[in-house]
Amino acid sequence: MSEPVKFLLSERDIPERWVNLLVDLPGDPLPPLNPQTLEPAGPADLTPIFPIGLIEQEVSSEPEVAIPEQVLEAYKLWRPTPLFRARRLERELGTPARIYYKYEGVSPAGSHKPNTAVAQAYENARAGVKRLTTETGAGQWGSALAFACSLFGLDCEVFMVGSSYDQKPYRRSMMQTWGATVHRSPSTLTGSGRGQQAHSTGSLGIAISEAVEVAASREDTNYSLGSVLNHVLLHQTVIGQEAAAQMEMAGDVPDVVIGCVGGGSNFAGLAFPFVRRVLGGQAKMRFLAAEPSACPTLTRGAYRYDFGDTAGLTPLMPMFTLGHDFVPPPVHAGGLRYHGDAPMICGLVRAGVIEARAYRQNETFAAAVRFARSEGIIPAPEPAHAIRAVIEEAEAAREADEERVILFGLCGHGHFDLSAYDAYLAGELDDPEFSTQEMEEALRRLPEAPALA
Amino acid sequence: MSEPVKFLLSERDIPERWVNLLVDLPGDPLPPLNPQTLEPAGPADLTPIFPIGLIEQEVSSEPEVAIPEQVLEAYKLWRPTPLFRARRLERELGTPARIYYKYEGVSPAGSHKPNTAVAQAYENARAGVKRLTTETGAGQWGSALAFACSLFGLDCEVFMVGSSYDQKPYRRSMMQTWGATVHRSPSTLTGSGRGQQAHSTGSLGIAISEAVEVAASREDTNYSLGSVLNHVLLHQTVIGQEAAAQMEMAGDVPDVVIGCVGGGSNFAGLAFPFVRRVLGGQAKMRFLAAEPSACPTLTRGAYRYDFGDTAGLTPLMPMFTLGHDFVPPPVHAGGLRYHGDAPMICGLVRAGVIEARAYRQNETFAAAVRFARSEGIIPAPEPAHAIRAVIEEAEAAREADEERVILFGLCGHGHFDLSAYDAYLAGELDDPEFSTQEMEEALRRLPEAPALA
Repeated sequence: MSEPVKFLLSERDIPERWVNLLVDLPGDPLPPLNPQTLEPAGPADLTPIFPIGLIEQEVSSEPEVAIPEQVLEAYKLWRPTPLFRARRLERELGTPARIYYKYEGVSPAGSHKPNTAVAQAYENARAGVKRLTTETGAGQWGSALAFACSLFGLDCEVFMVGSSYDQKPYRRSMMQTWGATVHRSPSTLTGSGRGQQAHSTGSLGIAISEAVEVAASREDTNYSLGSVLNHVLLHQTVIGQEAAAQMEMAGDVPDVVIGCVGGGSNFAGLAFPFVRRVLGGQAKMRFLAAEPSACPTLTRGAYRYDFGDTAGLTPLMPMFTLGHDFVPPPVHAGGLRYHGDAPMICGLVRAGVIEARAYRQNETFAAAVRFARSEGIIPAPEPAHAIRAVIEEAEAAREADEERVILFGLCGHGHFDLSAYDAYLAGELDDPEFSTQEMEEALRRLPEAPALA
Repeated sequence: MSEPVKFLLSERDIPERWVNLLVDLPGDPLPPLNPQTLEPAGPADLTPIFPIGLIEQEVSSEPEVAIPEQVLEAYKLWRPTPLFRARRLERELGTPARIYYKYEGVSPAGSHKPNTAVAQAYENARAGVKRLTTETGAGQWGSALAFACSLFGLDCEVFMVGSSYDQKPYRRSMMQTWGATVHRSPSTLTGSGRGQQAHSTGSLGIAISEAVEVAASREDTNYSLGSVLNHVLLHQTVIGQEAAAQMEMAGDVPDVVIGCVGGGSNFAGLAFPFVRRVLGGQAKMRFLAAEPSACPTLTRGAYRYDFGDTAGLTPLMPMFTLGHDFVPPPVHAGGLRYHGDAPMICGLVRAGVIEARAYRQNETFAAAVRFARSEGIIPAPEPAHAIRAVIEEAEAAREADEERVILFGLCGHGHFDLSAYDAYLAGELDDPEFSTQEMEEALRRLPEAPALA
């Protein structure tokens, strides 16, 4: 029993505050723009679809935000989550690197998403809202919100990206078990959906448009977003705070922190508490964002103001984008099929704090199977991108004969992705290409907004 | 944060010994019988399919058995598992009862089964065996053995009960991801399978026959059983030992311990450490076994010597049985579709220490959905039977206005059972009847073995 594998905290170690990295970023944050006027958008632009509690968190200038008691109570259903030392994977790779992973798949919904879902459901319930609408890609976010709504007595209506709806019927059943209503997107229920019937595989951008449209048109209904926005990233920082305490238990400090990036909330949740130390000059470490080659926003996108959704209903945000109506190929990592990224993440990539790398679908599944056969846990396709990057780093450490300490986010399990594993193991998983031409066409359709430095 | 919801142990609290309840049972244990001679079977009858390490555990007369270091290392991948206080369910039920559950779904395979799978894979690897065969019902056991074999470098060949193979394709994919080979049972690969092609839904009994037949016919191959046998129940006692420590942290002592029973290993794992205290006169508590009305071995079966498998290849064991060739209706709780029960469990039922109750499929799903919507976790259909019994006990406590302390085993999650939830939520889940006539016919086909008192 001399070599610990897990580092476990107790309930009283659940962080009582979220880390608001907004105040650490150099310069003033670039404002979102009103989609009609292209003028800076203020809190008032958000009140039709968000409760005031979340809007205050979105623009907070406090370095830390207290977590409400009822949210902490909900967190206790699965937090603190374990930190593992991947000793078996290290041996399998023959690397001198020490690999740690923070596992968020122990939540009822099976990913990190409930960290923000319960916070959002709580603030909406407190504001007297009766129903939340949202989009979901692979189904992780929709499941999380369905679960959170069941805890706080809210109705939940989910627009699920068509390609995932078809590939993952059991994610739909899971949402329904928690009492939610699920629509395949694009649907015929909204103008945004009816306008997109040609793109039958759908996209996160289209599904967001549908959910926003429904929320904006009903008095008792709000919208809930699973990533990208400041308050969502804020809520996820419980992950990194716990991980920091657990790395201390392990007696190690990360040299590199790795996570997958779709909208950026998983990555931010793990990394931001460490980024605060680096920006404050108390530590030196690298941050590595892994994304799909089929939807390479951080590595290939343009840094521009763009809408968060396909129909252009949301404020414009400063971000790396492939164009809001770019429809990524239907890779299984549905949670990474988003045309943009969180502005805070994009700013840190611009500033050189975060490095981004893109990986092909098949190489990420190869990494995931290797991980499953050594560590046991079967990863979701999204964190499989992080694992691919981890193996790259661990092999580089072996070649350099260097004791590198790697920390990565295993943000969810792959129990609803086994048809993709099936295809991979049968050698029949496709490896879709990214179309530069389609991106360039989509970028030409961007609105005339101020250029970014 | 005043009301704890989870009781967590650290890695160094993983039990280092298994509890062997065999030595606590009154009188000498009834011996298994050789299937050909009907004479008491000794260890030598088991060597063609089991390694000596497990045979020694099967017949051990030591009150505790040390857990090998390598098994403890494997346990650290998911143990200790959490104990929860079901505060939200208590409020939902309006009961004065305090409800606790020990959650084994955090293991990589999603159930309690890896507790014995890693112990069995280790002993077989140590004995130089190259391949393990087994049966699986719902796929929980097959997944667990596939996972364990991947840790100890063994090949794994799984015969999966036809009805589950059809209902749960992703359980098959999971086993394949860990490197196992999976056959639909009854298969055409074995004599036992070819003789049963008429029963296309299959049964655990048939699948066991197939796996035993393959193991007995190959020199480098052994068989591995996921329940029923003494050594399997022994391995599961880590659950109850941890739960006892966690109940102490919670400052409570169970009045009633509840679990579902298929072969009996989940129930034994949770209950036996507590049963030891009761048999030793150090405590008083009730033990409640929940089983499906469609396969009611403990409540309706005959107490007789019977084979463990359908084809009659295994030793005969003293147990409650519906007849070894009785094929239960294809309920979704595949892990409870077994014609008999562990002899140790049956003895305790006979002795009045354990009480058994049977529940219909639809009422167990109703209980499971109620649980999912209050506690978050979506249970497998097997522990849904335990939850049904828990609700019954909690409601009785409310009517009696009594502070009852209930501990139950939530032995697995339902991530691979969502098609059944789908059917339940749509009002389309069938509620198959048990056929007394079919049981009586099956019992008439039992071999002439000594009658049991």
